[in-house]
Amino acid sequence: MLKRTYDDQVCSIASTLEVVGERWSLLVLRDVFLGVSRFDDLQRDLGIARNVLRDRLNLLVGEDVLERVRYQERPERFEYRLTDKGRDLWPVLHALMSWGDRHVSGAGNEPTIVEHRECGGRLDGRGRCERCGALVDARDVVAKPGPGARPGHPLLSRG
Amino acid sequence: MLKRTYDDQVCSIASTLEVVGERWSLLVLRDVFLGVSRFDDLQRDLGIARNVLRDRLNLLVGEDVLERVRYQERPERFEYRLTDKGRDLWPVLHALMSWGDRHVSGAGNEPTIVEHRECGGRLDGRGRCERCGALVDARDVVAKPGPGARPGHPLLSRG
Repeated sequence: MLKRTYDDQVCSIASTLEVVGERWSLLVLRDVFLGVSRFDDLQRDLGIARNVLRDRLNLLVGEDVLERVRYQERPERFEYRLTDKGRDLWPVLHALMSWGDRHVSGAGNEPTIVEHRECGGRLDGRGRCERCGALVDARDVVAKPGPGARPGHPLLSRG
Repeated sequence: MLKRTYDDQVCSIASTLEVVGERWSLLVLRDVFLGVSRFDDLQRDLGIARNVLRDRLNLLVGEDVLERVRYQERPERFEYRLTDKGRDLWPVLHALMSWGDRHVSGAGNEPTIVEHRECGGRLDGRGRCERCGALVDARDVVAKPGPGARPGHPLLSRG
């Protein structure tokens, strides 16, 4: 059983961090959002120890944020998909990304750009399409390598 | 010098987590957003070791997310205030809170309720006022103890 970090904190921020606040958990979820879904691909992209990745995936599956789906029988191979509960984390990931774009990477140096699938407008810092004004959900988002992307970017390394 | 956790990750989510992703940092910021700004009050509310709190505050001041302001001369006493860069983290905190409200605390059991100062409407999961439709900024938000608040809630323990 994992130690609960924020046990005494009756607070929904603390509750969320109990589920996704472990080191690497949010970057695992970022990768799954970007379409990296298999253990070996996740391990390669994140460059973390296999046991740490396994722990994080098990926790996220246990919390019903990800589901583990077999995509091959012999040998057995699994991939990880977002559940609805996991997909609901999109505003968290987008808010973290927007703040980093603005205050760390800087305008014009964004590693990843996020667009509204329907109209191609970019999302602003609040997740609203700059072109049509819609508040965009995870399902209506297209992520592309941005001007600050480097060769290892998961959206570049795939065909 | 602090070890950078996600050094190899060229990603604005990783960049943000380098600044606010240490254990407790986001809960320190939550407290400052709620108006808990003095070291001893933060320490009491969070119940963490003083050296851990000091580390987190120093990191957040060093990153220009908080500023340290003297409010008393003899003996010298300081409080912590959000900078503009810190206030920009509001969408991150609100997204974490909304997800926890929905998926952990559950509707009707929210520890904290956030309202639009101008019209009193509650904020939805994307930070939009349910009454007037505005996307609400940190400065236009009023936080109140919710139905799931317990005695220790920082908004209950003050006046």
